Amino acid sequence: MRIKVINPNTTASMTQTIVAAAKAAAAPGTEIVGATSPTGPVSIEGHYDEAVSVIGLLEEIRAGEREGCDGYVIACFGDPGLLAAREAARGPVLGIAEAAMHAASFVATGFSVVTTLGRTRIIAEHLVHAYGMERHCRRVRATELAVLELEDPASDARRKIVDECRRALDEDGSGAIVLGCGGMADLARDLTHELGVPVIDGVGVAVKFIEALAGLGINTSKRGDLAFPLPKPYTGMLAGMAFRSK
Amino acid sequence: MRIKVINPNTTASMTQTIVAAAKAAAAPGTEIVGATSPTGPVSIEGHYDEAVSVIGLLEEIRAGEREGCDGYVIACFGDPGLLAAREAARGPVLGIAEAAMHAASFVATGFSVVTTLGRTRIIAEHLVHAYGMERHCRRVRATELAVLELEDPASDARRKIVDECRRALDEDGSGAIVLGCGGMADLARDLTHELGVPVIDGVGVAVKFIEALAGLGINTSKRGDLAFPLPKPYTGMLAGMAFRSK
Amino acid sequence: MRIKVINPNTTASMTQTIVAAAKAAAAPGTEIVGATSPTGPVSIEGHYDEAVSVIGLLEEIRAGEREGCDGYVIACFGDPGLLAAREAARGPVLGIAEAAMHAASFVATGFSVVTTLGRTRIIAEHLVHAYGMERHCRRVRATELAVLELEDPASDARRKIVDECRRALDEDGSGAIVLGCGGMADLARDLTHELGVPVIDGVGVAVKFIEALAGLGINTSKRGDLAFPLPKPYTGMLAGMAFRSK
Amino acid sequence: MRIKVINPNTTASMTQTIVAAAKAAAAPGTEIVGATSPTGPVSIEGHYDEAVSVIGLLEEIRAGEREGCDGYVIACFGDPGLLAAREAARGPVLGIAEAAMHAASFVATGFSVVTTLGRTRIIAEHLVHAYGMERHCRRVRATELAVLELEDPASDARRKIVDECRRALDEDGSGAIVLGCGGMADLARDLTHELGVPVIDGVGVAVKFIEALAGLGINTSKRGDLAFPLPKPYTGMLAGMAFRSK
Amino acid sequence: MRIKVINPNTTASMTQTIVAAAKAAAAPGTEIVGATSPTGPVSIEGHYDEAVSVIGLLEEIRAGEREGCDGYVIACFGDPGLLAAREAARGPVLGIAEAAMHAASFVATGFSVVTTLGRTRIIAEHLVHAYGMERHCRRVRATELAVLELEDPASDARRKIVDECRRALDEDGSGAIVLGCGGMADLARDLTHELGVPVIDGVGVAVKFIEALAGLGINTSKRGDLAFPLPKPYTGMLAGMAFRSK
Amino acid sequence: MRIKVINPNTTASMTQTIVAAAKAAAAPGTEIVGATSPTGPVSIEGHYDEAVSVIGLLEEIRAGEREGCDGYVIACFGDPGLLAAREAARGPVLGIAEAAMHAASFVATGFSVVTTLGRTRIIAEHLVHAYGMERHCRRVRATELAVLELEDPASDARRKIVDECRRALDEDGSGAIVLGCGGMADLARDLTHELGVPVIDGVGVAVKFIEALAGLGINTSKRGDLAFPLPKPYTGMLAGMAFRSK
Repeated sequence: MRIKVINPNTTASMTQTIVAAAKAAAAPGTEIVGATSPTGPVSIEGHYDEAVSVIGLLEEIRAGEREGCDGYVIACFGDPGLLAAREAARGPVLGIAEAAMHAASFVATGFSVVTTLGRTRIIAEHLVHAYGMERHCRRVRATELAVLELEDPASDARRKIVDECRRALDEDGSGAIVLGCGGMADLARDLTHELGVPVIDGVGVAVKFIEALAGLGINTSKRGDLAFPLPKPYTGMLAGMAFRSK
Repeated sequence: MRIKVINPNTTASMTQTIVAAAKAAAAPGTEIVGATSPTGPVSIEGHYDEAVSVIGLLEEIRAGEREGCDGYVIACFGDPGLLAAREAARGPVLGIAEAAMHAASFVATGFSVVTTLGRTRIIAEHLVHAYGMERHCRRVRATELAVLELEDPASDARRKIVDECRRALDEDGSGAIVLGCGGMADLARDLTHELGVPVIDGVGVAVKFIEALAGLGINTSKRGDLAFPLPKPYTGMLAGMAFRSK
Repeated sequence: MRIKVINPNTTASMTQTIVAAAKAAAAPGTEIVGATSPTGPVSIEGHYDEAVSVIGLLEEIRAGEREGCDGYVIACFGDPGLLAAREAARGPVLGIAEAAMHAASFVATGFSVVTTLGRTRIIAEHLVHAYGMERHCRRVRATELAVLELEDPASDARRKIVDECRRALDEDGSGAIVLGCGGMADLARDLTHELGVPVIDGVGVAVKFIEALAGLGINTSKRGDLAFPLPKPYTGMLAGMAFRSK
Repeated sequence: MRIKVINPNTTASMTQTIVAAAKAAAAPGTEIVGATSPTGPVSIEGHYDEAVSVIGLLEEIRAGEREGCDGYVIACFGDPGLLAAREAARGPVLGIAEAAMHAASFVATGFSVVTTLGRTRIIAEHLVHAYGMERHCRRVRATELAVLELEDPASDARRKIVDECRRALDEDGSGAIVLGCGGMADLARDLTHELGVPVIDGVGVAVKFIEALAGLGINTSKRGDLAFPLPKPYTGMLAGMAFRSK
Repeated sequence: MRIKVINPNTTASMTQTIVAAAKAAAAPGTEIVGATSPTGPVSIEGHYDEAVSVIGLLEEIRAGEREGCDGYVIACFGDPGLLAAREAARGPVLGIAEAAMHAASFVATGFSVVTTLGRTRIIAEHLVHAYGMERHCRRVRATELAVLELEDPASDARRKIVDECRRALDEDGSGAIVLGCGGMADLARDLTHELGVPVIDGVGVAVKFIEALAGLGINTSKRGDLAFPLPKPYTGMLAGMAFRSK
Repeated sequence: MRIKVINPNTTASMTQTIVAAAKAAAAPGTEIVGATSPTGPVSIEGHYDEAVSVIGLLEEIRAGEREGCDGYVIACFGDPGLLAAREAARGPVLGIAEAAMHAASFVATGFSVVTTLGRTRIIAEHLVHAYGMERHCRRVRATELAVLELEDPASDARRKIVDECRRALDEDGSGAIVLGCGGMADLARDLTHELGVPVIDGVGVAVKFIEALAGLGINTSKRGDLAFPLPKPYTGMLAGMAFRSK
């Protein structure tokens, strides 16, 4: 099975962290294909960054279809372009926020999300709603770390994240933590031991869930709104994004 | 006051219909600046089309900021890129679905949406939810007209829309109709008389609501998640979409 | 266009504040007709006050219909008698809580309401729910100012309101403030500048939204539950409130 | 124990039906005090009728307080003025829609409401929401009977109601029926036998629930928004509605 | 009328407290039949305890049917086995959480629950949701008292409960308190006086509501999912739980 | 990895169907341990059957803990005893309704459930709500097949299920089907091909999701309400269900 894990921002070093987590999670027969978005922001920290990042993501999905990928992981916690990606793909597509929140709801009656900047909190809150997690997600908490600080040893990022997780457990009554950024993917196992509760990174979970779905032959429904995009002309710089009739 | 009305698809003839409706609605002192997306699909009929259309929309918003526009209308019923556009704009930004649904809730306790293809219905339903209209919107109805058929006299589009409106009134118990496509903007007044209930086109309403907000000095909040995008590098084909520090 | 702005309490000095805000908002061709309720409480600070205030409000609506008014604003933050008023009116009717909350949702993803006495908070919370604003309204905050204290220079009302607004921004993560009393209508512009976020008074917004709707020919639906009241006998002191067959 | 059962419309013959149902339900030691609203509409069939009816209702509540009543039933299915009445009363106050819906949720996982005119259906739907009955109430059904037709033997009202009840059981999958008008109070026992499911009239239930609450010393909370109305001047025709300081 | 009040845990001394509260609430003609579960945990403090407790509860319901009981109270705040019990019973069945929450919603616009261990809070929160009390219940508060500590004079239980009630009134803005354990049934009247707000014990309310329903001939619907269990073989230790065809 | 798949009813032939589906789904290194409940009903078709079935399920969970199982599947579509089972288990526990609904939400924006008897539909509807699937699940449909008819070649079960699936696709606008009974586990792959949409059996999905979670070291949270049951005496027939202190 071939699963493509797409980092929708353009920072290749973050892709490395993500791909490492994906490979650590993957079953023996699974090939992880990592991809960094070819165009767009170096980090996704708002609605605007997210909207622009979708183009590169969709390009990678379409390339993946040509490459014979069996499923896709969108490795940014805002799950940008999720339904558009599903239209473009035959196999299953999961966002890491989606995967992590669903997994958390399987092992705890309440969880907290620990994410980066406060200005991205609303994105996670909208996803909580879209996924029906209102009664499971107790709170979305910001560390006020910028996404790229996660890669900077001088940022003290790990300590700030742990501190926020502890506050979540104490104040929110949560039984599990969802890590709210693809760049935190390397922290999940360690923090699970350190905090004594499930600390969930969506990259690993999404890979496993794609393995589960694709392995069972459960692909994206091509009946209704997730059918392949209608063939039609696209113009201008993005003309190449058009689907053609077959 | 200068209001930019942006058609996020690339079909200029549809922009004409939209701009005509906008101008008919505008107050004497309002200048309507029409714009057709410079790149993307010729019509927006799904999640994928919508996602790609956001780039052209955001380019027009950013151009509008340089041109001194006081507010913006996103003239596609899926309200693509709404929050991203708000980040990029100082003045208020409204989507036509948003404007029309809110207006309908002001004059009826229940309304129905009459839109184009069935595969776009879910987009409207998601907006119903995002805008808190679940208790006002009784049903989203598809005519199975393609967007560009609205411009084709041979398509019998007007009759199909009227028929669906009548079914909405009979079966849904609705007191008003929301027209679910920017390309229907020219029908609202006529159908209001023909059907004897408010038939609401979002283009006109959005223009008036922008006039209202901007006239009162109520602009997009720049505190929190709608603050201008953080300055950061963008790479690749979309490098020009980056915000710069000032 | 003639818009009637009705203060449902019987304090004429408060009507002056409200009418001044309405006139400041109105377009050149709009005539603002101010009205003070002819009967009922001097201020509305609870369910009981509100219920009684509806009679005077409805009398003014009915008088407005005879006077050729094109639309109505209910200038009390509880939006008393909103649906009853819509039954009695041909043109659009808006409450100031409704107008302000909808406007706030257009310029921020989250807002806080700053109102008067704690005992009226539940009224605003019920409106948040009725208008589908649960996901936009972060919190309703009371200043514990009585309504008529707003008119008393000795009450230090302005400072208490500003302080509560600042707490809302700090603690609720809101991007906009809705002023929760018609008597605060004069504060919106100043506080917007002082606080650097949209501070929204419903009186001005409601006037502009009525201009928008009536200008587009969008009137209250007369199909279904907002049709004119059925003609029938009314008896006793309120016999004059009956609708007659035509 | 003295329970006042208030018919908020001014039709005394309907009060007789209601009081008979109340007395049939009451415990041996309970005195039922019937009251017909002294002023307002002869029947309540819309938001406007309902709003006006509240004045007479509140007068009867206030008289009841002087008469030493221990609790109150608002015997109109729209539960007009419920929270205002609670402010004015020391003992518990129940609406018949509230009582009937809660009772139905105790004996079935889903129920349907069978009411009078279609234009009042929205009132019941709003109550379903206010009482948190969205997951219990499957549908509100109108018979298109006018309220006063219930008293007219020539109206064939009973048959139309039974027919609608049968459709509710067949089509909605409901396990119980709530009768949606005080004027149907005499039908509950008979229809329960005829249809083989609980058919619930709110008048009887409300009387018993008031007996339950008042018997246990559970009165309306006077802390917060249901405390007695603040003493303040009322002016005009309704000056007598004011509360005075004590 | 014969009402069976079932303590689903196996601690007979707690049954005494519960039965005393039930008898204090019952009408003159009501016979209260107390029962202690014949098997299961000595106290119910989690999902597991609760699940096991249902067997003893259902045995007592079935015995009650043979004994001619007219209705049933499940005297544990988690309302274990409520719908299963309704299937097995002809008359009405109420849980004490259900009864208390509904009663609280009749006398206050917001209430708080004060319960025992923090780990049971989620059970109450799920009930809040099942009963549609999300907009009435402001908060579920734990005292961290174990259930059996309520019976231990050395536990200082009463003081801890009163303290938590006071915090609820101060911090939650609630107008009433719901006591969240059958073992607190003896405190309601005293605390009502001490705190000046309705403090509601579900045992008393449930008895009165059963009297109300059964007195009106409103029994559990036997149409649909609450019909008697289908006759079928049961095997193993619980073979005796099977229903037989008649 | 050792995953225990528990059939909570006592029909061993149905366990065979379930275990076959589980084994077909399992990864090479996964050992599937099948179990039939040792006590309770031969099929689960209502709240009562379900409540009783939980005892056998919990016994099997506890045995599984002694046997070193890494995770558990509750193979009945009502997900009986899910939270109690989670308290008793160290590893992850999934219900098949939970697994199937979540999977369906990953590959379609709307799905329908096709289940057995109409009287069990409410159980599925309550789960839809508990799992936050209200906006994804379009409808729960009953075939009126008894559970054990699924095993009877004479019942024409397969045809009835396919017919109901087709109606779901036509009438509900769903993009995927969830099979609503463990006894349908063998139909998923075939029907997926026959209907051209994902037809999802929860047994296979639950096995894969348990593999995913346990493989990542994500176990049931033992902080809060899912911690192991408190040690305490249990009495009577179920005394053996007690947890002991360690």
